[in-house]
Amino acid sequence: MEFSSKLLERAVNEMSQLPGIGKRTALRLVLHMLKQPKEQATALSEALLNMRNDVKFCKSCYNISDVEICEICSNPVRDQSIVCVVEDVRDVMAIENTNSFKGLYHVLGGKISPMDGIGPHDLNVQSLVDKVKEGKIKELFFALSSTMEGDTTNFYIFKQIQDYNIFTSTIARGISVGDELEYADEITLSRSIVNRVPFENSLKL
Amino acid sequence: MEFSSKLLERAVNEMSQLPGIGKRTALRLVLHMLKQPKEQATALSEALLNMRNDVKFCKSCYNISDVEICEICSNPVRDQSIVCVVEDVRDVMAIENTNSFKGLYHVLGGKISPMDGIGPHDLNVQSLVDKVKEGKIKELFFALSSTMEGDTTNFYIFKQIQDYNIFTSTIARGISVGDELEYADEITLSRSIVNRVPFENSLKL
Ligand SMILES: [Zn+2]
Ligand SMILES: [Zn+2]
Repeated sequence: MEFSSKLLERAVNEMSQLPGIGKRTALRLVLHMLKQPKEQATALSEALLNMRNDVKFCKSCYNISDVEICEICSNPVRDQSIVCVVEDVRDVMAIENTNSFKGLYHVLGGKISPMDGIGPHDLNVQSLVDKVKEGKIKELFFALSSTMEGDTTNFYIFKQIQDYNIFTSTIARGISVGDELEYADEITLSRSIVNRVPFENSLKL
Repeated sequence: MEFSSKLLERAVNEMSQLPGIGKRTALRLVLHMLKQPKEQATALSEALLNMRNDVKFCKSCYNISDVEICEICSNPVRDQSIVCVVEDVRDVMAIENTNSFKGLYHVLGGKISPMDGIGPHDLNVQSLVDKVKEGKIKELFFALSSTMEGDTTNFYIFKQIQDYNIFTSTIARGISVGDELEYADEITLSRSIVNRVPFENSLKL
């Protein structure tokens, strides 16, 4: 791609560093900004800089937070004895959105993935094990994605804490509400049969 | 979407002002930036700010440029007597990329679109008409997209300059090289038949 301006080229190159943003998309975004008031570019630049430089992670659960201990961890109404283990901040947001979980979270910051060189020590695993050792947690609820890495991570943590005699759970896998059986993949369908639930439960939603 | 941090929320909101970037995508991009070195966020912010504040438009053709008169307009090798009329900067880049046009450009900055409240006076139309009046242009080559707005714009400019007795041309429409006839839309196929070219021409590519 040949640019008629170094300023434009640099903006496109930096923008296309972002995942999923190719050069063409970056160019489209950057040219759009040129048509908007300067204030919009200023606001975006400042917001990104401030976030990158000043954002904090909760010292207890590693969720993104503007304060040392996040609003979820410091909320006295929430059940401190159940901890939901998630991969990243987006999972916290997705689960919070459902309003169906009232415990705390622990954000690992990724999954164990030997292929990508990510081991337990690259993640917030030890601090989770330490929390379990403290004895205040009754249930650890694994909500990682159902991939080989997710299963490996669940199992690794499970082995670390299995002597502490707490209840461990994982999110139910099954056919999505509204989905046709015939289009479900085999493993999901199989799990949804093995883990079938009392019919009354399905009436609660 | 509930955010656990105002800094994160602001960054996502500003990012999602960009066209085609929804809140979910913005969140993904912004969380990616948090995992990268701070220098990357700084570089992106600065590149966007510098571009927005300092970029110039060529005083002759309105292409983006770091100097008053762009490299294309000031290139003595290019044919100053033929001017290609395009909608925006991306069209200049696309045409330059083909290496098959050696004249100058005129970037309108959009198309006439009464529906969107865009008239000739919102675009760089008068300066183009003035160029024609000066008498140095022999051919005006319309390369706008083939939509109602594109056709309206072409026709508006054509009416303004028709008394000056210059040659006007427009890009050939036809079946894309490599495309199957059967999948072409009817209008394109029809135009490609009406405007069929000498067979020898097809051997030149
Ligand atoms: Zn927290
Ligand atoms: Zn120029």
